[in-house]
Amino acid sequence: MPRLFLYLCENILHTRMQNNFSISYPNSEKIYLPGTLFPHLRVGMRKITLTDTVEYVNGEKKVTPNAPVVVYDTSGVFSDPAHTIDLKQGLPRLREEWICSRGDVEQLPNISSEYGRMRAADKNLDHLRFQHICKPYRAKQGREISQMYYAKQGIITPEMEYVAIRENQMIESLGIKTHITPELVRQEVAAGRAIIPANINHPEAEPMIIGSKFLVKLNTNIGNSALSSSINEEVEKAVWSCKWGGDTLMDLSTGAHIHETREWIIRNCPVPVGTVPIYQALEKVDGRVEDLTWEIYKDTIIEQCEQGVDYFTIHAGVLQAHADLLKNRLTGIVSRGGSILTKWCKMHSAENFLYTHFDEICEILAAYDVAVSLGDGMRPGSIHDANDALQFAELSVLGELTKKAWAHNVQVIIEGPGHVPMNKIAENMDLQKRVCHEAPFYTLGPLVTDIAPGYDHITSAIGAAHIAWLGTAMICYVTPKEHLSLPNKEDVRNGVIAYKLAAHAADLAKGHPGAQVRDNALSKARYDFRWRDQFNLSLDPERALEYYKEGRSEEEGFCTMCGPNFCAMKLTRELSDCVTHK
Amino acid sequence: MPRLFLYLCENILHTRMQNNFSISYPNSEKIYLPGTLFPHLRVGMRKITLTDTVEYVNGEKKVTPNAPVVVYDTSGVFSDPAHTIDLKQGLPRLREEWICSRGDVEQLPNISSEYGRMRAADKNLDHLRFQHICKPYRAKQGREISQMYYAKQGIITPEMEYVAIRENQMIESLGIKTHITPELVRQEVAAGRAIIPANINHPEAEPMIIGSKFLVKLNTNIGNSALSSSINEEVEKAVWSCKWGGDTLMDLSTGAHIHETREWIIRNCPVPVGTVPIYQALEKVDGRVEDLTWEIYKDTIIEQCEQGVDYFTIHAGVLQAHADLLKNRLTGIVSRGGSILTKWCKMHSAENFLYTHFDEICEILAAYDVAVSLGDGMRPGSIHDANDALQFAELSVLGELTKKAWAHNVQVIIEGPGHVPMNKIAENMDLQKRVCHEAPFYTLGPLVTDIAPGYDHITSAIGAAHIAWLGTAMICYVTPKEHLSLPNKEDVRNGVIAYKLAAHAADLAKGHPGAQVRDNALSKARYDFRWRDQFNLSLDPERALEYYKEGRSEEEGFCTMCGPNFCAMKLTRELSDCVTHK
Repeated sequence: MPRLFLYLCENILHTRMQNNFSISYPNSEKIYLPGTLFPHLRVGMRKITLTDTVEYVNGEKKVTPNAPVVVYDTSGVFSDPAHTIDLKQGLPRLREEWICSRGDVEQLPNISSEYGRMRAADKNLDHLRFQHICKPYRAKQGREISQMYYAKQGIITPEMEYVAIRENQMIESLGIKTHITPELVRQEVAAGRAIIPANINHPEAEPMIIGSKFLVKLNTNIGNSALSSSINEEVEKAVWSCKWGGDTLMDLSTGAHIHETREWIIRNCPVPVGTVPIYQALEKVDGRVEDLTWEIYKDTIIEQCEQGVDYFTIHAGVLQAHADLLKNRLTGIVSRGGSILTKWCKMHSAENFLYTHFDEICEILAAYDVAVSLGDGMRPGSIHDANDALQFAELSVLGELTKKAWAHNVQVIIEGPGHVPMNKIAENMDLQKRVCHEAPFYTLGPLVTDIAPGYDHITSAIGAAHIAWLGTAMICYVTPKEHLSLPNKEDVRNGVIAYKLAAHAADLAKGHPGAQVRDNALSKARYDFRWRDQFNLSLDPERALEYYKEGRSEEEGFCTMCGPNFCAMKLTRELSDCVTHK
Repeated sequence: MPRLFLYLCENILHTRMQNNFSISYPNSEKIYLPGTLFPHLRVGMRKITLTDTVEYVNGEKKVTPNAPVVVYDTSGVFSDPAHTIDLKQGLPRLREEWICSRGDVEQLPNISSEYGRMRAADKNLDHLRFQHICKPYRAKQGREISQMYYAKQGIITPEMEYVAIRENQMIESLGIKTHITPELVRQEVAAGRAIIPANINHPEAEPMIIGSKFLVKLNTNIGNSALSSSINEEVEKAVWSCKWGGDTLMDLSTGAHIHETREWIIRNCPVPVGTVPIYQALEKVDGRVEDLTWEIYKDTIIEQCEQGVDYFTIHAGVLQAHADLLKNRLTGIVSRGGSILTKWCKMHSAENFLYTHFDEICEILAAYDVAVSLGDGMRPGSIHDANDALQFAELSVLGELTKKAWAHNVQVIIEGPGHVPMNKIAENMDLQKRVCHEAPFYTLGPLVTDIAPGYDHITSAIGAAHIAWLGTAMICYVTPKEHLSLPNKEDVRNGVIAYKLAAHAADLAKGHPGAQVRDNALSKARYDFRWRDQFNLSLDPERALEYYKEGRSEEEGFCTMCGPNFCAMKLTRELSDCVTHK
């Protein structure tokens, strides 16, 4: 690669990385809650301060304060003004001490993967490389270190208490009863019904939990393809996704410098990071599927385990025999991983090496507490193909692999479709739950129609809200650019907010304790004409304010939709004897 | 009003109205289908022509043609290149002959409403006025003229055959069985389970049907408030809404020149137009709710019946006693009509005059075949207030009024909420169906969470898709500006497409005959890499193309999401022995 290009990259990277990465939310304060079992815990939350309700009752001014609202916060220290952001240093290593003090891990003298060592030694990459790479951790010989292992032993880890506090969003202080205790977290993780993705080599990540008894989570995808994007754009998108509420982040890069990009992202990512290792393995063989081998794949997962990836999508459920079921499909295979492995099986007339080596994979993952997200390589890519024999044949293999992974104490989530009409969504959920022994379901959408390219964040948010209500633990966002091109920052924002609202709608429908606190506070602000509070409580305060300002020049006691004579809420307010509102 | 302002209005109006009103869709042709019972019918549809599938099998080129797809078309003659658009002339009076030939109506020598005559006589309005106003039609003394009346008599009208042809979208020619016949349409209208909104004074509108056995329809709202917008913007929005797929259009104007704006809209609107007459009545008393009277309201509905409004939202279910139930609410009344009438009841200590005069209202509406949309003045405005006693108390009054309207052969739809969490949606639908004797349900959203101002087209599309699947016949769109300000053209587009896709998702989930034809065709195009066909088949071809172009410089045989090595569909294609794709 020409030196000039590298020089330019470096300069752009360093200049841009100094700026604009700190996140602020209006009228909000970063607060940290301590633990009870682990008093040293500092669980970051966002406290939104509200203004008072001011009314005039019989001409007399009446002022009533409104309690602040504490909300779940995925932005990490990026939203902490007390912390100075330095992407070149990476985030604070929050969990490192917890991990080390358990005494089950050791720091390796060098990285284990051949490829990783090669990249580290390549002087041409010095300019692109994250500077402060630590030596990797791994489980000591004969020791188990996964959250699932500890949970099964009856041990509550700091990670478990952390997520319990985080999930509760201080609702107990509002007098709302919650069932989410550290012990419940432990039980759910032990049973495989929830996971805490927490690679020991990503101690920067704030613990979070994925399971149907907890808040519905959303994953965002970023990543460059061969056609576009740069390292620095990807880091920017990662932070951006965390700002708007992404709970986990998948780096789906397929272009150059995958290894270096990933390092920058992980070192600066406060949420768990997932990847699909087969993508990088394929890059290593220059895109020639036939040249993929178990050895290359194995080296790739070790490389990524030691960088700190928290969960891998592994398409181990794609079997050689499945190809026969393709003939009834309208849109064949739409999963990249699924198509790569199907092609590999066919070219080698052999069984999928991810399936045949699954126990070895689990042994590796267990040594770093990397979770497996069992990929749905045969997910339907059209309404026509939804819930077909092929999809469900793969699902049943995923159920079998779940049991295997659990035997190694590897945490598991199951990936789901895709394109599914509303009337077939429940069948997906029911079957997944039964066949995969209640391992958390993690679905892409589903898109409830094929005919709206350009609006697939909406077609899929409809399906996502529905399936999350029925029990899906995490939904994978879709941006407006789906099927068309790679998302830019604005697309990421639109995708995250669409999914954030879908996830929240599901929390409401499930009756999750405390989910309605924010809705009630926002609606009360709306009814009180406390416009700023309404915006500050919303998922995207900036957009709400922007739209509001478009319609008027200053704040007044009626809504722009209706004008002064037609505001229903103003009229209703006046009904209560002599009460007028500020 | 200053003459200069009027002069400017006129000039802007006339210049802009000459241009840019013709609609075209890519690779599409306007076609007209004849009737069987009424061979003179010309039912306008859109035929999308597709390119051939080109494959290389063992090196040999194989070309397979793809059948065109005929889709429902709400754009009227605006998309017919054979028709010259002249907004000053208005649209062709399609139904006038059908109406007259039934022999049940007479043309009046003058308009009946006092206000209408006053406006007509006001020389200051000449510049703003639509020039070619016809004398109004009304039922002859002692005659019944509504579609419901004819249906009950066993008469199939041209309107009924028209909608049957339109609903079928030529699916029979594809070998798909349909149950939608003119006789089914008649039965459904007779039973009150469906309506064909078709004021005899809006003969320009193309007949359409609203009922749960038919395609789910969507309504769009336009209208200026005192704060913004002009006549000409509103006409532009109306045509724009029809372009993207709005099935009906409510003019919710509350500002100046309501009467004149409405005339322009109706004369140029190929879809049924609805209004909320209480808004105009309130303007007539300068916004003083206490000054509203039955006489003013009555004159207003006659005025609007004779202009050609096809359905009125009437909040006759808001009762004096309901105010007592308000105390448990977080957000009181959020319906403008509901708040106006509640205030009126309170100020006069009297029962709602729309309730007490409901029979007279029905007599008037029956003489023009104007449908009533029973307004939900007590719809919940927050998740907190969903499905409360107040909402359901009003619903049961609406059921009682439905029976009354039907006794006058007035067609009825029932308006529904609002803000409802997903788990409470089914209860709304079930109760409405039972309490309102299966009259079609017409819902605003519902919004499934309160916390996403700026994204409420999405929060509400989630609820709308869900409730439409369960049986709601028409969904009322919400734009991204809901709760914040009045929508502009781009917001209208975003709102319509979000609802169009929600409606279609419901059609798919209901298994509506032929609903999946378009999805299958689009997905096949996607799988074939026939990009242009994919875009042309989509709900918003322009946006799909725009996003696609953002990602790449020219068309190639892989998707921009993945790049050349990672395209799942390309890899799958290659699996079928030696098949490569164009």
